[in-house]
Amino acid sequence: MKKILFFLFVSAYSFAQIDKVEPPFWYENMNLSQIQIMFYGKNIAQNTVSVSNGIVITGVQKTENPNYIFVTIDTKDVLAQEVVFTFKNKNKSFTQKYEIKKRKENSRLRESFDASDVIYLLMPDRFANGDLSNDSTPNTTEKADRNNPGGRHGGDIEGIIKNLDYIKSVGATAIWPTPLCEDNDKTYSYHTYAQSDVYKIDPRYGTNEDFVRLSAEMKKRNLKLVVDYVTNHWGAEHWMFKDMPTYDWFHQFPGYGQTNYRMTTQFDQNASKIDTKYCMDGWFVKSMPDLNQSNPMVLNYLIQNAIWWIEYADLNGFRVDTYSYADKVGIAKWTKAITDEYPNFNIVGEVWMYDQAQMAYWQKDSKIGAIQNYNSYLPSVMDFTLQEAIHNGVFNDDEASWFGGIIKVYNNFTNDFLYPNPNSLLVFFENHDTDRINEIYKNDFKKYQLALTLIATTRGIPQIYYGSEIGMAGDKSKGDADIRRDFPGGWATDTTTAFTKEGRTTEQAKYFDFTSKILNWRKSKNIIHTGKLTHYIPENNVYVYFRHDEKESVMVVINNSKDKQTFKVERFKENLEKYTKGIDVLSGNSFDCTKEITIDGKSSLILELK
Amino acid sequence: MKKILFFLFVSAYSFAQIDKVEPPFWYENMNLSQIQIMFYGKNIAQNTVSVSNGIVITGVQKTENPNYIFVTIDTKDVLAQEVVFTFKNKNKSFTQKYEIKKRKENSRLRESFDASDVIYLLMPDRFANGDLSNDSTPNTTEKADRNNPGGRHGGDIEGIIKNLDYIKSVGATAIWPTPLCEDNDKTYSYHTYAQSDVYKIDPRYGTNEDFVRLSAEMKKRNLKLVVDYVTNHWGAEHWMFKDMPTYDWFHQFPGYGQTNYRMTTQFDQNASKIDTKYCMDGWFVKSMPDLNQSNPMVLNYLIQNAIWWIEYADLNGFRVDTYSYADKVGIAKWTKAITDEYPNFNIVGEVWMYDQAQMAYWQKDSKIGAIQNYNSYLPSVMDFTLQEAIHNGVFNDDEASWFGGIIKVYNNFTNDFLYPNPNSLLVFFENHDTDRINEIYKNDFKKYQLALTLIATTRGIPQIYYGSEIGMAGDKSKGDADIRRDFPGGWATDTTTAFTKEGRTTEQAKYFDFTSKILNWRKSKNIIHTGKLTHYIPENNVYVYFRHDEKESVMVVINNSKDKQTFKVERFKENLEKYTKGIDVLSGNSFDCTKEITIDGKSSLILELK
Repeated sequence: MKKILFFLFVSAYSFAQIDKVEPPFWYENMNLSQIQIMFYGKNIAQNTVSVSNGIVITGVQKTENPNYIFVTIDTKDVLAQEVVFTFKNKNKSFTQKYEIKKRKENSRLRESFDASDVIYLLMPDRFANGDLSNDSTPNTTEKADRNNPGGRHGGDIEGIIKNLDYIKSVGATAIWPTPLCEDNDKTYSYHTYAQSDVYKIDPRYGTNEDFVRLSAEMKKRNLKLVVDYVTNHWGAEHWMFKDMPTYDWFHQFPGYGQTNYRMTTQFDQNASKIDTKYCMDGWFVKSMPDLNQSNPMVLNYLIQNAIWWIEYADLNGFRVDTYSYADKVGIAKWTKAITDEYPNFNIVGEVWMYDQAQMAYWQKDSKIGAIQNYNSYLPSVMDFTLQEAIHNGVFNDDEASWFGGIIKVYNNFTNDFLYPNPNSLLVFFENHDTDRINEIYKNDFKKYQLALTLIATTRGIPQIYYGSEIGMAGDKSKGDADIRRDFPGGWATDTTTAFTKEGRTTEQAKYFDFTSKILNWRKSKNIIHTGKLTHYIPENNVYVYFRHDEKESVMVVINNSKDKQTFKVERFKENLEKYTKGIDVLSGNSFDCTKEITIDGKSSLILELK
Repeated sequence: MKKILFFLFVSAYSFAQIDKVEPPFWYENMNLSQIQIMFYGKNIAQNTVSVSNGIVITGVQKTENPNYIFVTIDTKDVLAQEVVFTFKNKNKSFTQKYEIKKRKENSRLRESFDASDVIYLLMPDRFANGDLSNDSTPNTTEKADRNNPGGRHGGDIEGIIKNLDYIKSVGATAIWPTPLCEDNDKTYSYHTYAQSDVYKIDPRYGTNEDFVRLSAEMKKRNLKLVVDYVTNHWGAEHWMFKDMPTYDWFHQFPGYGQTNYRMTTQFDQNASKIDTKYCMDGWFVKSMPDLNQSNPMVLNYLIQNAIWWIEYADLNGFRVDTYSYADKVGIAKWTKAITDEYPNFNIVGEVWMYDQAQMAYWQKDSKIGAIQNYNSYLPSVMDFTLQEAIHNGVFNDDEASWFGGIIKVYNNFTNDFLYPNPNSLLVFFENHDTDRINEIYKNDFKKYQLALTLIATTRGIPQIYYGSEIGMAGDKSKGDADIRRDFPGGWATDTTTAFTKEGRTTEQAKYFDFTSKILNWRKSKNIIHTGKLTHYIPENNVYVYFRHDEKESVMVVINNSKDKQTFKVERFKENLEKYTKGIDVLSGNSFDCTKEITIDGKSSLILELK
């Protein structure tokens, strides 16, 4: 990358005609071989364009903005090589080198994340500051100010790299950092969802090369990298928003028009056209111009950008922000293009709804989407109804009733048949947009244990959020900053660190040790990753389920009652008949599974059946 | 029927071998022409059986109980006639006449209920006592006692007949009485869901002939009769439960086993087998043995019984009790058999769930049912999520918020695409198993008006519940009797009557006049029956929707805010561009629909657009 950037720098200055080439290079032997290269420079559209080495130009597209020219070349069967574009205007001409690179071996069939993983979600600005020199940088507006809760605190890629071993010790196998591309907004740039250049890592996090290094360091440790991709919008500071290729590159009302956030309009057959349009095309907030994915050039730009990052930084998956706010047809094409390129690549979309039919609508091959002939091609969605049950205090329901108690959790799983693939649901109790679990349950450790046991053993892909594993709390009603506090020990000036065993307080260690134990146990348990889930209607606020196949079975008992409970196992015969005892993963104790089981109040058992 | 009953009476006494023949007669030219006739009598199975007139016996089935013999004859192409069955045992024999009757003209394509109707639900024991002589009868256990809230109060078929003109004046076009077949339970027989003979009207309501007369009197008034059919269970006093044809005629645990009521087990792919079995096969309550519809003889018995009633009493539809508690495959076969016989016949099943995907599962041709290759063939289900929103106090939400206010009602309709036929949903705010609307809203008349406006103008089939149209309240938490109070004026001893204009108090008249006005207006409004629904995201707690087609449009405005609201109509352009004014159905006032509309707090407008 360094070479290319240098080259671009030189070319921009020697001819003053080309400021940007995107994607900056491409790869041989790609499924997406018709690549539309964007050349950007003052009045560049006045030129004709040709290319060397017998490469075929299949299209040249100019727009109403003379500073852009989009040139499509066919790279099918083109081996890695450097080619030269020549731009001519009357008798003046200039050239631009462009590289087709070799692909990594097995790139197409790269490994992705699935239910065998545990994803660790972190916010780079708030996790750890590994490089003090990039806390503020000359070309970015917002400067570091750790005293500003909503400001930049200095966390960076180096900070993540330094703590990869810590993350691995928690028991995670994958990391989802919130976005890392440049966000040059004047304020709140730390969340980085208002990106100003999607081909460049924000310099306050590091360089593109640092990001590639992070990926490589993760590979060494068998950790998967899941990138937070934003298809719906860019930031208002994006250079292409300031000099739009086409007026309809963004949704225009004209200019800003706010989304109504009512995602139901996307399938509601009674919805008015205007409501549907405002939901999809409206801007998420004023600082985030809404991308028009129904413009094929925009769509193409986003597809190429996404694939370029996967190939360049060797990624293992995407989390897609505000998935169901994007153009419905466009986002499906984007998702399909990526999974056509990488058939095993998992993408989890943020579809934040509280109705399972509505969420299932958005999962690939949904029978519910099919009612409207819609297929999003999105492999994974987030289990927000489970999160809602936990968020709404299910573990505070000491007493059971028809609708109350652990039945809320049981009920969540009764609709699994609506999902084409329930095992590809992200299961979580919090993320960077919600209250933290330790806030919801006021750091009642027993309730944290119940919640973690649940998400670690039910179907789906568990996702945890940095810091909760050491008991961090955070109240969204106090503002986002409260749920995105700095990880203790991430800054050189921190007086304590939770990254090391020695540094953790007794309270932090309690959380860490439990989390680490259960998640590290989970790593090798295929039966938890892929075993069938069979569950039983809770009785007395005790929820019993099994993860099982022909050979193996794990029995999970979650007692949400505050009292000790003893129950007969006769009812579970269909799952227990081959087994006589269970070894509890947490305590190591052996349980007789032939008559009855006793469990303490607000506790759980994970019994490996023998 | 009188003749037949008399005949049976004679035959039973003259030979003492046959106590029951069911169905007691059949009809020519039926789709269901292979009819399995049950003969019941002491040791009847010791006989061989033959039949006269060249009729073909296609099967004779005996069971472990010698008192039953089931004889299947083929009536295809058999014209109306009387045939004779001969039973022989060694050298003794006896005969049994059996009649094939003529069908009514157009019986097969009979009219049924749909969204052009408004259904009036009433409980016969609590509506009006038209015949004092049958309040208690010799052969039924429970005697009339109007002082017992859960006892029999004496209401009957004659009471309904006498007040048909009243019901018509309310604006209803169909009546759903709760069940009328004999329920000989010792207590609580007034609800009549624990039936003891499904071929006989409970004598305390009248005779089978009285029921036929009710139907005929309704036809005269263009009122449709919807019978409350119970497929799931019979009462423990049913004569066939006391002398079972087969042990597996009912679900045996052995004997009583209670359902767990968790209907989600019927589609939950994670459910244990035992939970699924107990839900479906368990008894609703101890006094209601659960019928085994997976036994083909039981299923056949129920199909024939249902069709017999339709043909005999000229019915227009069924409401099916506890639909989703019956054997899932069996109930679908039952429903299909009836709609195969009567292609236009509507059947609405009680599927009491609070999740639209779960309810939609049970509607005919459901894409959600199809996920599991299930088709219930049930044309209509009940919109319980709408009822829930109203029950949970949506009209008390004076202020709007993301989840609060009239948005709850709007949200209900956003999932219509899940239903194969949303226009065939029963829309209601209460029934005989819920709090009454005037209890929920403490007789706040404005809130009653909002609720009635909504169910009278949205898509679907409105259903109202006797008495609410005169302001009756009732609190389920005080027991079922409180929501099933006697209609004032239904008893000769009542000092006041709400059945007549003169008899109604000012308060009752207020409710009645509003209800009657809106429902009578609705009768001829095809655009409300079948027009497309287009709705808009509520703003300021005001919900606006249109029922429209190419030629006509009605604009409904429901202001759930307590304050007067003025809103611009620009937003509704796609529905308003052809119109300039609207005449309010309720006030007759004309509204200019070109700029803005003002509406009082907690009120609604139904604007016929011009």
